[in-house]
Amino acid sequence: MTDLNEISALTFNVFGTVVDWRSGIIRDGEALGRAKGLAVDWARFADAWRGLYQPALSQVRDGTRPWTKLDDLHRESLERLLVEFGIAGLSEAEADALNRAWHRLDPWPDAVAGMTRLRRRYILATLSNGNVALLVNMAKRAGLPWDAVLGAEVARRYKPQKEAYLATAAFLGLRPAQCLMVAAHYNDLVAAAACGFRTAYVWRRDEFVVRPKDDLPAVHALDLVVEDFGALADRLGCA
Amino acid sequence: MTDLNEISALTFNVFGTVVDWRSGIIRDGEALGRAKGLAVDWARFADAWRGLYQPALSQVRDGTRPWTKLDDLHRESLERLLVEFGIAGLSEAEADALNRAWHRLDPWPDAVAGMTRLRRRYILATLSNGNVALLVNMAKRAGLPWDAVLGAEVARRYKPQKEAYLATAAFLGLRPAQCLMVAAHYNDLVAAAACGFRTAYVWRRDEFVVRPKDDLPAVHALDLVVEDFGALADRLGCA
Repeated sequence: MTDLNEISALTFNVFGTVVDWRSGIIRDGEALGRAKGLAVDWARFADAWRGLYQPALSQVRDGTRPWTKLDDLHRESLERLLVEFGIAGLSEAEADALNRAWHRLDPWPDAVAGMTRLRRRYILATLSNGNVALLVNMAKRAGLPWDAVLGAEVARRYKPQKEAYLATAAFLGLRPAQCLMVAAHYNDLVAAAACGFRTAYVWRRDEFVVRPKDDLPAVHALDLVVEDFGALADRLGCA
Repeated sequence: MTDLNEISALTFNVFGTVVDWRSGIIRDGEALGRAKGLAVDWARFADAWRGLYQPALSQVRDGTRPWTKLDDLHRESLERLLVEFGIAGLSEAEADALNRAWHRLDPWPDAVAGMTRLRRRYILATLSNGNVALLVNMAKRAGLPWDAVLGAEVARRYKPQKEAYLATAAFLGLRPAQCLMVAAHYNDLVAAAACGFRTAYVWRRDEFVVRPKDDLPAVHALDLVVEDFGALADRLGCA
Protein backbone atom coordinates (compact mmCIF):
# COMPACT_ATOMS: atom_id res chain seq x y z
CA MET A 1 0.00 0.00 0.00
CA THR A 2 1.33 3.41 -0.97
CA ASP A 3 2.28 5.82 1.78
CA LEU A 4 -0.47 8.41 1.87
CA ASN A 5 1.12 10.47 4.63
CA GLU A 6 2.80 12.92 2.31
CA ILE A 7 -0.46 13.96 0.65
CA SER A 8 -1.16 17.70 1.07
CA ALA A 9 -3.87 18.28 -1.51
CA LEU A 10 -6.86 16.42 -2.89
CA THR A 11 -7.53 17.24 -6.53
CA PHE A 12 -10.99 16.37 -7.76
CA ASN A 13 -12.60 15.43 -10.97
CA VAL A 14 -15.92 17.30 -10.76
CA PHE A 15 -18.49 16.11 -13.35
CA GLY A 16 -19.71 12.75 -12.08
CA THR A 17 -17.41 12.67 -9.04
CA VAL A 18 -18.57 15.73 -7.08
CA VAL A 19 -21.78 16.60 -8.92
CA ASP A 20 -24.52 14.62 -10.63
CA TRP A 21 -24.46 16.14 -14.09
CA ARG A 22 -27.20 13.97 -15.54
CA SER A 23 -29.96 14.83 -13.06
CA GLY A 24 -29.07 18.52 -13.23
CA ILE A 25 -29.28 18.72 -17.00
CA ILE A 26 -32.56 16.77 -17.01
CA ARG A 27 -34.03 19.03 -14.30
CA ASP A 28 -33.17 22.27 -16.09
CA GLY A 29 -34.24 20.83 -19.46
CA GLU A 30 -37.60 19.80 -18.07
CA ALA A 31 -38.13 23.25 -16.54
CA LEU A 32 -37.40 24.87 -19.89
CA GLY A 33 -39.61 22.33 -21.63
CA ARG A 34 -42.55 23.19 -19.40
CA ALA A 35 -42.00 26.93 -19.82
CA LYS A 36 -41.74 26.70 -23.61
CA GLY A 37 -44.14 23.80 -24.21
CA LEU A 38 -41.45 21.52 -25.65
CA ALA A 39 -41.91 17.75 -26.00
CA VAL A 40 -38.35 16.52 -25.45
CA ASP A 41 -36.94 13.41 -23.78
CA TRP A 42 -34.55 15.32 -21.53
CA ALA A 43 -32.83 12.21 -20.21
CA ARG A 44 -31.89 11.29 -23.77
CA PHE A 45 -30.93 14.93 -24.35
CA ALA A 46 -28.63 14.93 -21.31
CA ASP A 47 -26.94 11.72 -22.42
CA ALA A 48 -26.53 13.07 -25.96
CA TRP A 49 -25.00 16.32 -24.63
CA ARG A 50 -22.54 14.40 -22.50
CA GLY A 51 -21.88 12.13 -25.49
CA LEU A 52 -20.57 15.09 -27.49
CA TYR A 53 -18.16 16.03 -24.68
CA GLN A 54 -15.18 13.78 -25.47
CA PRO A 55 -15.32 14.35 -29.25
CA ALA A 56 -15.32 18.13 -28.64
CA LEU A 57 -12.40 17.91 -26.21
CA SER A 58 -10.50 15.68 -28.62
CA GLN A 59 -10.34 18.42 -31.22
CA VAL A 60 -8.65 20.71 -28.71
CA ARG A 61 -6.40 17.97 -27.37
CA ASP A 62 -5.15 16.95 -30.81
CA GLY A 63 -4.57 20.55 -31.91
CA THR A 64 -7.27 20.55 -34.61
CA ARG A 65 -8.50 23.72 -32.96
CA PRO A 66 -7.00 26.21 -30.52
CA TRP A 67 -7.75 26.29 -26.82
CA THR A 68 -11.50 26.63 -26.29
CA LYS A 69 -13.10 26.66 -22.86
CA LEU A 70 -15.73 24.10 -21.91
CA ASP A 71 -18.60 26.62 -21.80
CA ASP A 72 -17.98 27.31 -25.48
CA LEU A 73 -17.67 23.63 -26.40
CA HIS A 74 -20.91 22.92 -24.50
CA ARG A 75 -22.60 25.71 -26.43
CA GLU A 76 -21.49 24.36 -29.81
CA SER A 77 -22.76 20.91 -28.85
CA LEU A 78 -26.01 22.47 -27.67
CA GLU A 79 -26.56 24.11 -31.05
CA ARG A 80 -26.28 20.69 -32.72
CA LEU A 81 -28.65 19.10 -30.22
CA LEU A 82 -31.27 21.82 -30.59
CA VAL A 83 -31.49 20.90 -34.28
CA GLU A 84 -31.31 17.15 -33.61
CA PHE A 85 -34.06 17.25 -30.99
CA GLY A 86 -36.20 19.66 -33.00
CA ILE A 87 -36.07 22.42 -30.38
CA ALA A 88 -36.84 25.73 -32.06
CA GLY A 89 -37.65 29.22 -30.90
CA LEU A 90 -35.14 29.67 -28.09
CA SER A 91 -33.87 33.20 -27.67
CA GLU A 92 -30.16 33.79 -27.23
CA ALA A 93 -30.78 34.37 -23.52
CA GLU A 94 -32.72 31.10 -23.23
CA ALA A 95 -30.04 29.12 -25.04
CA ASP A 96 -27.36 30.69 -22.86
CA ALA A 97 -29.34 29.91 -19.72
CA LEU A 98 -29.71 26.28 -20.81
CA ASN A 99 -25.99 26.10 -21.54
CA ARG A 100 -25.38 27.29 -18.01
CA ALA A 101 -27.27 24.30 -16.63
CA TRP A 102 -23.72 22.91 -16.30
CA HIS A 103 -23.06 25.71 -13.77
CA ARG A 104 -26.06 24.60 -11.70
CA LEU A 105 -25.41 20.92 -11.09
CA ASP A 106 -26.18 19.49 -7.66
CA PRO A 107 -23.55 17.68 -5.62
CA TRP A 108 -23.99 14.01 -4.76
CA PRO A 109 -25.65 13.79 -1.32
CA ASP A 110 -22.42 12.97 0.54
CA ALA A 111 -20.19 15.48 -1.29
CA VAL A 112 -20.39 18.68 0.78
CA ALA A 113 -20.26 16.90 4.15
CA GLY A 114 -17.34 14.74 3.03
CA MET A 115 -15.43 17.68 1.57
CA THR A 116 -15.98 19.68 4.74
CA ARG A 117 -14.28 16.92 6.73
CA LEU A 118 -11.47 16.49 4.19
CA ARG A 119 -10.82 20.22 4.01
CA ARG A 120 -9.78 20.40 7.66
CA ARG A 121 -6.62 18.52 6.79
CA TYR A 122 -6.12 18.92 3.04
CA ILE A 123 -6.14 21.56 0.35
CA LEU A 124 -9.13 20.81 -1.88
CA ALA A 125 -8.79 21.83 -5.51
CA THR A 126 -10.70 21.14 -8.68
CA LEU A 127 -8.79 19.32 -11.39
CA SER A 128 -11.61 19.41 -13.86
CA ASN A 129 -12.10 20.00 -17.55
CA GLY A 130 -14.72 22.57 -16.57
CA ASN A 131 -13.71 26.20 -16.99
CA VAL A 132 -13.12 28.42 -13.98
CA ALA A 133 -16.37 30.42 -14.23
CA LEU A 134 -18.43 27.24 -14.52
CA LEU A 135 -16.75 25.73 -11.46
CA VAL A 136 -16.92 28.94 -9.41
CA ASN A 137 -20.60 29.44 -10.15
CA MET A 138 -21.31 25.79 -9.39
CA ALA A 139 -19.42 25.96 -6.09
CA LYS A 140 -21.15 29.18 -5.06
CA ARG A 141 -24.60 27.69 -5.66
CA ALA A 142 -23.89 24.25 -4.20
CA GLY A 143 -21.64 25.29 -1.31
CA LEU A 144 -18.62 23.29 -2.47
CA PRO A 145 -15.72 24.38 -0.22
CA TRP A 146 -12.83 24.57 -2.68
CA ASP A 147 -9.51 26.09 -1.68
CA ALA A 148 -8.59 26.57 -5.33
CA VAL A 149 -10.31 26.21 -8.70
CA LEU A 150 -7.72 24.76 -11.06
CA GLY A 151 -7.52 22.24 -13.88
CA ALA A 152 -7.87 22.44 -17.64
CA GLU A 153 -8.49 26.14 -18.18
CA VAL A 154 -5.55 27.40 -16.14
CA ALA A 155 -3.35 24.69 -17.71
CA ARG A 156 -4.86 25.29 -21.17
CA ARG A 157 -4.88 21.51 -21.67
CA TYR A 158 -7.70 19.06 -21.26
CA LYS A 159 -7.40 15.90 -19.21
CA PRO A 160 -6.19 13.26 -19.71
CA GLN A 161 -3.26 15.22 -21.18
CA LYS A 162 -0.54 15.22 -18.57
CA GLU A 163 -0.05 18.99 -18.56
CA ALA A 164 -3.49 19.42 -16.95
CA TYR A 165 -2.38 17.36 -13.93
CA LEU A 166 1.18 18.65 -13.75
CA ALA A 167 0.18 22.32 -14.04
CA THR A 168 -2.38 21.92 -11.27
CA ALA A 169 0.20 20.40 -8.91
CA ALA A 170 2.67 23.13 -9.87
CA PHE A 171 0.14 25.91 -9.18
CA LEU A 172 -0.33 24.38 -5.73
CA GLY A 173 3.44 24.36 -5.24
CA LEU A 174 3.35 20.59 -4.70
CA ARG A 175 5.03 17.55 -6.15
CA PRO A 176 2.56 15.20 -7.89
CA ALA A 177 3.07 12.62 -5.12
CA GLN A 178 1.69 15.17 -2.65
CA CYS A 179 -1.59 15.25 -4.58
CA LEU A 180 -4.37 12.67 -4.39
CA MET A 181 -6.52 12.62 -7.52
CA VAL A 182 -10.12 11.81 -6.63
CA ALA A 183 -12.29 10.63 -9.50
CA ALA A 184 -15.14 8.32 -10.41
CA HIS A 185 -13.44 7.52 -13.72
CA TYR A 186 -10.64 5.00 -14.02
CA ASN A 187 -9.00 6.61 -17.07
CA ASP A 188 -8.69 9.95 -15.24
CA LEU A 189 -6.89 8.20 -12.38
CA VAL A 190 -4.60 6.23 -14.68
CA ALA A 191 -3.54 9.48 -16.35
CA ALA A 192 -2.99 11.15 -12.97
CA ALA A 193 -0.98 8.18 -11.70
CA ALA A 194 1.23 8.36 -14.79
CA CYS A 195 2.09 11.91 -13.65
CA GLY A 196 2.98 10.69 -10.16
CA PHE A 197 -0.31 11.51 -8.40
CA ARG A 198 -1.80 9.28 -5.75
CA THR A 199 -5.25 8.03 -6.74
CA ALA A 200 -8.66 7.45 -5.18
CA TYR A 201 -11.51 5.91 -7.14
CA VAL A 202 -14.97 6.86 -5.92
CA TRP A 203 -17.83 4.64 -6.97
CA ARG A 204 -20.61 6.78 -8.31
CA ARG A 205 -22.75 3.85 -9.29
CA ASP A 206 -25.64 6.05 -10.40
CA GLU A 207 -23.67 8.41 -12.64
CA PHE A 208 -24.90 7.09 -15.97
CA VAL A 209 -28.18 5.39 -14.94
CA VAL A 210 -28.69 3.89 -18.40
CA ARG A 211 -25.55 1.77 -18.15
CA PRO A 212 -23.74 0.23 -15.21
CA LYS A 213 -20.56 1.73 -13.80
CA ASP A 214 -18.03 -0.85 -14.95
CA ASP A 215 -14.79 0.97 -15.73
CA LEU A 216 -12.79 -0.23 -12.72
CA PRO A 217 -10.78 -3.35 -13.61
CA ALA A 218 -10.61 -6.20 -11.11
CA VAL A 219 -6.84 -5.78 -11.00
CA HIS A 220 -5.54 -2.22 -10.75
CA ALA A 221 -2.81 -0.13 -9.13
CA LEU A 222 -4.96 2.60 -7.57
CA ASP A 223 -4.20 3.66 -4.01
CA LEU A 224 -7.77 3.80 -2.72
CA VAL A 225 -11.20 2.65 -3.83
CA VAL A 226 -14.08 4.10 -1.81
CA GLU A 227 -17.84 4.22 -1.98
CA ASP A 228 -18.25 7.96 -1.40
CA PHE A 229 -16.59 11.07 0.13
CA GLY A 230 -17.57 10.07 3.64
CA ALA A 231 -15.71 6.80 3.20
CA LEU A 232 -12.76 8.72 1.73
CA ALA A 233 -12.65 10.97 4.81
CA ASP A 234 -12.76 7.84 6.99
CA ARG A 235 -9.90 6.21 5.08
CA LEU A 236 -7.79 9.36 5.34
CA GLY A 237 -8.52 9.69 9.05
CA CYS A 238 -10.39 13.01 8.80
CA ALA A 239 -12.73 13.55 11.72
CA MET B 1 -21.71 58.04 -9.13
CA THR B 2 -21.17 54.84 -11.11
CA ASP B 3 -23.87 52.21 -11.10
CA LEU B 4 -22.59 49.44 -8.88
CA ASN B 5 -25.61 47.20 -9.41
CA GLU B 6 -24.05 45.18 -12.16
CA ILE B 7 -21.09 44.09 -10.03
CA SER B 8 -20.90 40.30 -9.66
CA ALA B 9 -17.37 39.82 -8.35
CA LEU B 10 -15.00 41.60 -6.02
CA THR B 11 -11.36 41.14 -7.01
CA PHE B 12 -8.84 41.90 -4.29
CA ASN B 13 -5.33 43.08 -4.05
CA VAL B 14 -3.98 40.96 -1.20
CA PHE B 15 -0.64 42.26 0.20
CA GLY B 16 -1.53 45.35 2.19
CA THR B 17 -5.24 45.23 1.40
CA VAL B 18 -6.29 41.89 2.90
CA VAL B 19 -3.21 41.00 4.93
CA ASP B 20 -0.65 42.98 6.93
CA TRP B 21 2.58 41.86 5.25
CA ARG B 22 4.89 43.98 7.39
CA SER B 23 3.88 42.63 10.81
CA GLY B 24 3.92 39.08 9.51
CA ILE B 25 7.45 39.30 8.12
CA ILE B 26 8.71 40.97 11.29
CA ARG B 27 7.05 38.33 13.48
CA ASP B 28 8.54 35.38 11.61
CA GLY B 29 11.92 37.12 11.33
CA GLU B 30 12.03 37.74 15.06
CA ALA B 31 11.14 34.10 15.78
CA LEU B 32 13.98 32.95 13.54
CA GLY B 33 16.30 35.53 15.10
CA ARG B 34 15.59 34.20 18.59
CA ALA B 35 16.04 30.59 17.47
CA LYS B 36 19.32 31.29 15.70
CA GLY B 37 20.66 34.05 17.96
CA LEU B 38 20.65 36.67 15.18
CA ALA B 39 20.89 40.40 15.87
CA VAL B 40 18.77 41.81 13.05
CA ASP B 41 16.44 44.80 12.84
CA TRP B 42 13.54 42.80 11.39
CA ALA B 43 11.36 45.86 10.73
CA ARG B 44 14.12 47.24 8.53
CA PHE B 45 14.51 43.78 7.01
CA ALA B 46 10.78 43.60 6.19
CA ASP B 47 10.82 47.04 4.57
CA ALA B 48 13.93 46.14 2.57
CA TRP B 49 12.36 42.88 1.36
CA ARG B 50 9.23 44.71 0.26
CA GLY B 51 11.46 47.35 -1.33
CA LEU B 52 12.95 44.75 -3.68
CA TYR B 53 9.46 43.68 -4.79
CA GLN B 54 8.74 46.21 -7.55
CA PRO B 55 12.26 46.06 -9.06
CA ALA B 56 11.99 42.26 -9.24
CA LEU B 57 8.54 42.41 -10.85
CA SER B 58 9.73 45.03 -13.31
CA GLN B 59 12.23 42.63 -14.85
CA VAL B 60 9.43 40.20 -15.59
CA ARG B 61 7.05 42.93 -16.77
CA ASP B 62 9.55 44.43 -19.20
CA GLY B 63 10.57 41.03 -20.59
CA THR B 64 14.15 41.15 -19.26
CA ARG B 65 13.44 37.72 -17.84
CA PRO B 66 10.77 35.08 -18.47
CA TRP B 67 7.75 34.51 -16.27
CA THR B 68 8.88 33.85 -12.70
CA LYS B 69 6.47 33.31 -9.84
CA LEU B 70 6.53 35.53 -6.78
CA ASP B 71 7.83 32.81 -4.44
CA ASP B 72 10.95 32.61 -6.59
CA LEU B 73 11.37 36.39 -6.81
CA HIS B 74 10.98 36.62 -3.03
CA ARG B 75 13.64 33.95 -2.62
CA GLU B 76 16.12 35.78 -4.87
CA SER B 77 15.53 39.00 -2.93
CA LEU B 78 15.98 37.08 0.31
CA GLU B 79 19.40 35.79 -0.79
CA ARG B 80 20.51 39.39 -1.35
CA LEU B 81 19.15 40.51 2.01
CA LEU B 82 20.82 37.66 3.91
CA VAL B 83 24.16 39.01 2.68
CA GLU B 84 23.19 42.64 3.24
CA PHE B 85 22.01 42.03 6.80
CA GLY B 86 24.92 39.71 7.60
CA ILE B 87 22.71 36.72 8.27
CA ALA B 88 24.80 33.58 7.87
CA GLY B 89 24.35 29.92 8.68
CA LEU B 90 20.77 29.34 7.54
CA SER B 91 20.13 25.88 6.16
CA GLU B 92 18.19 25.50 2.92
CA ALA B 93 15.15 24.45 4.96
CA GLU B 94 15.46 27.52 7.22
CA ALA B 95 15.80 29.89 4.27
CA ASP B 96 12.81 28.27 2.56
CA ALA B 97 10.76 28.55 5.77
CA LEU B 98 11.64 32.23 6.06
CA ASN B 99 10.70 32.77 2.41
CA ARG B 100 7.35 31.22 3.18
CA ALA B 101 6.67 33.88 5.81
CA TRP B 102 4.76 35.47 2.89
CA HIS B 103 2.40 32.45 3.02
CA ARG B 104 1.71 33.09 6.72
CA LEU B 105 0.62 36.72 6.81
CA ASP B 106 -2.25 37.67 9.08
CA PRO B 107 -5.36 39.42 7.78
CA TRP B 108 -6.21 42.92 8.96
CA PRO B 109 -8.62 42.61 11.90
CA ASP B 110 -11.74 43.46 9.84
CA ALA B 111 -10.86 41.35 6.81
CA VAL B 112 -12.40 37.92 7.46
CA ALA B 113 -15.62 39.30 8.95
CA GLY B 114 -16.02 41.79 6.10
CA MET B 115 -15.29 39.20 3.42
CA THR B 116 -17.77 36.79 5.00
CA ARG B 117 -20.49 39.42 4.62
CA LEU B 118 -19.43 40.36 1.09
CA ARG B 119 -19.25 36.73 -0.02
CA ARG B 120 -22.98 36.20 0.53
CA ARG B 121 -23.68 38.41 -2.45
CA TYR B 122 -20.49 38.48 -4.50
CA ILE B 123 -17.84 36.18 -5.92
CA LEU B 124 -14.62 36.96 -4.05
CA ALA B 125 -11.40 36.40 -5.98
CA THR B 126 -7.79 37.30 -5.50
CA LEU B 127 -6.28 39.57 -8.13
CA SER B 128 -2.83 39.55 -6.61
CA ASN B 129 0.73 39.35 -7.78
CA GLY B 130 1.15 36.50 -5.30
CA ASN B 131 1.37 33.03 -6.82
CA VAL B 132 -1.43 30.53 -6.34
CA ALA B 133 0.33 28.35 -3.75
CA LEU B 134 1.22 31.38 -1.64
CA LEU B 135 -2.36 32.64 -1.72
CA VAL B 136 -3.91 29.21 -1.09
CA ASN B 137 -1.64 28.52 1.88
CA MET B 138 -2.29 32.01 3.25
CA ALA B 139 -6.06 31.59 2.89
CA LYS B 140 -6.02 28.16 4.49
CA ARG B 141 -4.12 29.44 7.53
CA ALA B 142 -6.01 32.73 7.89
CA GLY B 143 -9.50 31.54 6.95
CA LEU B 144 -9.87 33.86 3.97
CA PRO B 145 -13.04 32.75 2.17
CA TRP B 146 -12.04 33.05 -1.50
CA ASP B 147 -14.25 31.69 -4.24
CA ALA B 148 -11.31 31.70 -6.64
CA VAL B 149 -7.56 32.31 -6.45
CA LEU B 150 -6.63 34.21 -9.60
CA GLY B 151 -4.36 37.06 -10.65
CA ALA B 152 -0.80 37.27 -11.91
CA GLU B 153 0.23 33.61 -12.00
CA VAL B 154 -2.76 32.35 -13.96
CA ALA B 155 -2.48 35.38 -16.27
CA ARG B 156 1.33 35.07 -16.42
CA ARG B 157 1.51 38.85 -16.17
CA TYR B 158 2.16 41.05 -13.17
CA LYS B 159 -0.06 43.96 -12.23
CA PRO B 160 -0.33 46.71 -13.22
CA GLN B 161 -0.09 45.16 -16.69
CA LYS B 162 -3.59 45.06 -18.08
CA GLU B 163 -3.54 41.36 -18.95
CA ALA B 164 -3.51 40.50 -15.23
CA TYR B 165 -6.85 42.27 -14.74
CA LEU B 166 -8.43 41.23 -18.02
CA ALA B 167 -7.46 37.56 -17.68
CA THR B 168 -8.92 37.45 -14.16
CA ALA B 169 -12.26 38.87 -15.34
CA ALA B 170 -12.23 36.45 -18.29
CA PHE B 171 -11.58 33.44 -16.03
CA LEU B 172 -14.61 34.51 -14.00
CA GLY B 173 -16.66 34.76 -17.19
CA LEU B 174 -17.38 38.42 -16.46
CA ARG B 175 -17.01 41.73 -18.22
CA PRO B 176 -14.58 44.08 -16.43
CA ALA B 177 -17.49 46.35 -15.46
CA GLN B 178 -18.94 43.44 -13.48
CA CYS B 179 -15.79 43.34 -11.34
CA LEU B 180 -14.98 45.67 -8.45
CA MET B 181 -11.25 45.92 -7.80
CA VAL B 182 -10.58 46.35 -4.09
CA ALA B 183 -7.17 47.70 -3.17
CA ALA B 184 -5.30 49.87 -0.72
CA HIS B 185 -3.08 51.17 -3.52
CA TYR B 186 -4.19 53.89 -5.89
CA ASN B 187 -2.01 52.79 -8.83
CA ASP B 188 -3.55 49.31 -8.73
CA LEU B 189 -7.02 50.85 -8.97
CA VAL B 190 -6.06 53.22 -11.76
CA ALA B 191 -4.76 50.27 -13.79
CA ALA B 192 -7.92 48.26 -13.06
CA ALA B 193 -10.15 51.21 -14.02
CA ALA B 194 -8.28 51.56 -17.31
CA CYS B 195 -9.40 47.96 -18.04
CA GLY B 196 -13.02 48.84 -17.23
CA PHE B 197 -13.16 47.57 -13.65
CA ARG B 198 -15.09 49.36 -10.91
CA THR B 199 -12.84 50.45 -8.08
CA ALA B 200 -12.84 50.60 -4.29
CA TYR B 201 -9.97 52.16 -2.37
CA VAL B 202 -9.54 50.81 1.16
CA TRP B 203 -7.56 52.90 3.57
CA ARG B 204 -4.98 50.75 5.28
CA ARG B 205 -3.40 53.60 7.15
CA ASP B 206 -1.02 51.32 9.02
CA GLU B 207 0.35 49.40 6.05
CA PHE B 208 3.77 51.01 5.93
CA VAL B 209 4.12 52.33 9.50
CA VAL B 210 7.35 54.19 8.70
CA ARG B 211 5.65 56.46 6.19
CA PRO B 212 2.10 57.79 5.98
CA LYS B 213 -0.42 56.38 3.53
CA ASP B 214 -0.66 59.25 1.08
CA ASP B 215 -1.18 57.79 -2.39
CA LEU B 216 -4.84 58.79 -2.79
CA PRO B 217 -5.13 62.13 -4.61
CA ALA B 218 -7.68 64.66 -3.41
CA VAL B 219 -9.35 64.50 -6.81
CA HIS B 220 -9.85 61.05 -8.29
CA ALA B 221 -12.31 58.99 -10.33
CA LEU B 222 -12.60 55.96 -8.06
CA ASP B 223 -16.06 54.55 -7.39
CA LEU B 224 -15.69 53.98 -3.65
CA VAL B 225 -13.33 55.01 -0.88
CA VAL B 226 -13.82 53.13 2.38
CA GLU B 227 -12.07 52.74 5.69
CA ASP B 228 -12.14 48.92 5.86
CA PHE B 229 -13.99 45.81 4.65
CA GLY B 230 -16.83 46.33 7.12
CA ALA B 231 -17.46 49.75 5.61
CA LEU B 232 -17.23 48.23 2.12
CA ALA B 233 -19.90 45.67 3.04
CA ASP B 234 -22.06 48.49 4.40
CA ARG B 235 -21.66 50.54 1.22
CA LEU B 236 -22.56 47.55 -0.94
CA GLY B 237 -25.58 46.73 1.21
CA CYS B 238 -24.33 43.36 2.42
CA ALA B 239 -25.92 42.28 5.68
